[in-house]
Amino acid sequence: MKTQLQKARAGVVTPEMHTAAEGEPISAEDLCSLIARGRAVLPKNAVHDFASIKAIGEGLKTKVNANLGTSGECADMAAEEKKLAAALRAGADSIMDLSTGGDLDQLRWMFLKKSPVMLGTVPIYGLAAKMLRHGRPMHDITPEELFREIELQCSQGVDYITVHCGITTQSVQRLEHFKRIMPCVSRGGSMHMQWIRANGQENPLYQDFDALLDIAEKYDVTLSLGDGFRPGCIEDSLDGAQVEELMILAELAGRAFERGVQVMIEGPGHVPLNEIKTQIQLQKKLCRNAPFYILGPLPTDIAAGYDHITSAIGGAVAGAAGADFLCYVTPAEHLALPAEDDVYQGVMAARIAGHIADLSKGLPGSADKDRKMAHCRQTLDWEGMIKSALDPDLVRSRMQIAEDGRTCSMCGKLCAVKTSEETQALQAES
Amino acid sequence: MKTQLQKARAGVVTPEMHTAAEGEPISAEDLCSLIARGRAVLPKNAVHDFASIKAIGEGLKTKVNANLGTSGECADMAAEEKKLAAALRAGADSIMDLSTGGDLDQLRWMFLKKSPVMLGTVPIYGLAAKMLRHGRPMHDITPEELFREIELQCSQGVDYITVHCGITTQSVQRLEHFKRIMPCVSRGGSMHMQWIRANGQENPLYQDFDALLDIAEKYDVTLSLGDGFRPGCIEDSLDGAQVEELMILAELAGRAFERGVQVMIEGPGHVPLNEIKTQIQLQKKLCRNAPFYILGPLPTDIAAGYDHITSAIGGAVAGAAGADFLCYVTPAEHLALPAEDDVYQGVMAARIAGHIADLSKGLPGSADKDRKMAHCRQTLDWEGMIKSALDPDLVRSRMQIAEDGRTCSMCGKLCAVKTSEETQALQAES
Repeated sequence: MKTQLQKARAGVVTPEMHTAAEGEPISAEDLCSLIARGRAVLPKNAVHDFASIKAIGEGLKTKVNANLGTSGECADMAAEEKKLAAALRAGADSIMDLSTGGDLDQLRWMFLKKSPVMLGTVPIYGLAAKMLRHGRPMHDITPEELFREIELQCSQGVDYITVHCGITTQSVQRLEHFKRIMPCVSRGGSMHMQWIRANGQENPLYQDFDALLDIAEKYDVTLSLGDGFRPGCIEDSLDGAQVEELMILAELAGRAFERGVQVMIEGPGHVPLNEIKTQIQLQKKLCRNAPFYILGPLPTDIAAGYDHITSAIGGAVAGAAGADFLCYVTPAEHLALPAEDDVYQGVMAARIAGHIADLSKGLPGSADKDRKMAHCRQTLDWEGMIKSALDPDLVRSRMQIAEDGRTCSMCGKLCAVKTSEETQALQAES
Repeated sequence: MKTQLQKARAGVVTPEMHTAAEGEPISAEDLCSLIARGRAVLPKNAVHDFASIKAIGEGLKTKVNANLGTSGECADMAAEEKKLAAALRAGADSIMDLSTGGDLDQLRWMFLKKSPVMLGTVPIYGLAAKMLRHGRPMHDITPEELFREIELQCSQGVDYITVHCGITTQSVQRLEHFKRIMPCVSRGGSMHMQWIRANGQENPLYQDFDALLDIAEKYDVTLSLGDGFRPGCIEDSLDGAQVEELMILAELAGRAFERGVQVMIEGPGHVPLNEIKTQIQLQKKLCRNAPFYILGPLPTDIAAGYDHITSAIGGAVAGAAGADFLCYVTPAEHLALPAEDDVYQGVMAARIAGHIADLSKGLPGSADKDRKMAHCRQTLDWEGMIKSALDPDLVRSRMQIAEDGRTCSMCGKLCAVKTSEETQALQAES
C-alpha cells in the first residue's frame, strides 16, 4: 500500500490522517472513511515532509491555495520567497509553484523546503519553459519528455499536480462545435490543444493515463485534473467544450480512484452568479463527489484590479454549494504577475470566501469565532475583537478608540451599543 | 399632485422619470408604471436640483450609496469634500450625509450643493448631535423637536430620509423575548429604543406617522424606513425582533404608498449566506415589492478590515435575489470613520456586487461590457480592455504589457490566448 487512499480503503488510519483531522470538525476515522470513498484527498507526497498536513473535501473546512512562481518576464528568487512568506502569513493552506522563468528546479526546491504547507505544480509549465529556452515549439514535446518531467517533479516531492488530461481529440472537436468568445484561456490547456492539432495525435496524458497513474501511485501524488476548457468569460460558461471536458475528467477520476490514486477535479473560471450552483452540482454528480478545486469563479469579466473581490463573491457561493478548495485570485489577475501585497490580499479574500461558505453550510464549530466577535462587540472589548478577527494585525493598526476607551471614532459618543447599554441601565433603575 | 408617485399614478411621465430612465433597460413609461405600483422610487426633493437623477427598484440597475459625514471625533469639512469626490469618482449613485460632528447645517448644504447625485440623511443624527452639544440626554427630545428637525432637513432639499419608525413599544417588547447577542446596533434605532423606554411612550414617528407623511409629501421626500433592529451579528439574523420590525415597516410602507409618499425599506445587516435569499424574499413579500435598501449584508462577523469584501459577497447574493439598493460598506467598517481611500474602495466593491447581481438577474444590456471585455481579451486589445474595465485608471496603472505588445507579464510568452491563436494558424495552414 503506497497511497493514503489505498491505506484508507484498508481501514488504516494513518498518522497523516490524524494530523490532517486536527482543527477539523471531524475525527481522523471519519476523514479516513471520506478518503476511502474518494470524497476527500490528503495531498502529501511520500517523499515530502512538511508540518501543516491538511485534507481537502467533504465535511472539511474550505481550503485556500495561493499560486506563486515566476514568469519569463519576472524571475526573482528573493521575490518568490517574500511572496511565499506573505501567503503563509495570510493563512494559505497550499502553495502552487507555477514558475516558468529562472532556474525552475531551484525555485521548486525552495518552495519544497521553505513551505510548511502542501505544494502543487503544473508540470507542463516547467517543460514549456525549457522548450522556449531551447527555441523548440511546444508541439515538439515528446510523450517521453512529458512523462519524464512529471516523474522528475513527483520524485522531488511535489504533493499534487495539475494535469490537463481532459484536452483530448474529442473535447477539442466539441470546442469547434460551440462558438466561444475565448476558446482557451488555460496555459496548460492551450499547449495540449496545440500539441494534439499539430501532431494529429491523442493527448499523451489521456492516451497513457495508466502511465500517469503509475507515477502518481509511486509517490502518492494527488492528481488535480485540470480544466483546460474552463470558461474564460461569463458568456462561455457551461458550454459544450466545458461539459465535454468535465465528463472526460469524471471518467479519469473514476479510473484513478479504482487504482488507489488520490484525485480532485479543477473547475471554472468565469461563471455568472446564477450558474455557480449548477456548475458545482454537475461536477459533484458527474465525478461522484470527488473534491472540487476551483479557480474563482469570477461572476463578472470587467472588474480587473478587483478580481480578488470578484473571486471572493464567486468562491463564497461556490463553497456554500460544495466546492472544497479555493484557488485564490489576486488584485493583479488579468494585469500582471502578482506582487507580495497582491498575494496577501488574494489569500485573505479567498479565506473570507471559504469561511463564509463554511458558515453557510453550517460546518460544526465554524461560527465559534463569529460568536466570540459578536460578544466582544457587545461588551466593547476591543482587545477581544482584535483577537477574534481574521486579521488581528490589520484590525489593531486601523482601530481608532476614543480616549475614554468606550467608543470608536466611527460613531463616537453616538455608539449604538453604548446607547443600548444605557437603556438597559435606565430600565434596571425603573 | 406633489410627488412622483402621485404623478405616476395619474399616468404622468415626468421629466425626472425621463432622466432617470436614461441608461436603464426600461423606458420612462415603464418606470412610471413601476413607480405607480410602488415597486420603484425616484428620490428627488422638489426643492433640490441635481444632475444625476436616478430611480431605485425592480427592473432597474442595482444602485450604490456611499455613507459620508463627520463624527464627533472627526469633523473636517475639507475631508468630507474629498470623500465626496472619491465617492463620485468611484461611481456612487447616492450619498448619505450621516454627519454628527461639526457644523451640521453647513455640511448638509455642502453636500446638497456639490453632489450631483441624490442625498439622503438620518435626521435624528443631527438632532442627537445637538442634544449632546447641549448636554441633554437623548430621551429629552420632544416629538416637536424631532418633527421640526425632519422638516428642516426636508425643506433644505434632502431627497430621502432614514426614519426608524419600526422601533415601537411592540417591537421593543418582541426584542425582550428573543435572546440576542447584540440587541441593537443601529444608532438611530438605539436612540428611539431609549426614548421609548425612558418616556414610557410610543415612538413619535410611529404614533404620528401621518405628520411624517405630511412633510414627506410636501417636499416629495422618499421615506427610507430604517431597520433599527437589524441583526448586528450573523447569529441574530432572522429573529423575532427583526421580523417584528419588518412587519411594522410593511404596514407603514402601505400607508405611505396610499398617501402617495414614495417609500423604500432598509434591511440587514449581518446575515449568514444561506439566509440572504430568505431575507430578501420575506421583505419583498411582506412589503409588496417596495424597493429594498440594504446595508451589507455581511455574511461573517470576523473580517473587520475587509468588510467591503464581506459586504460585496452578501450584496451580490442579495442583489441577485432582488435587493435594489446597496449601501456600501468600507474597509474601515467596525474600526474607524472611513477615510478617502476607504470610500473609494467601498463604492467600487459595492458596484462590483451590484453589477454581478444585474448579470445574475439577466438585466437586459448588463452583459454588454463583459462581452466587450471578453472580445478585447481574445484579441489582446489592451486599450479596449482598459476601456471596458469598471475602473479604467486602475487597470491602466497596473497592466504590464511586454515590449512586443502581445503579452502581459502574468504569463509572458506562455499566454494561453496567444497559444490558442497560433494553433488556429497551424490548423489554417494544414
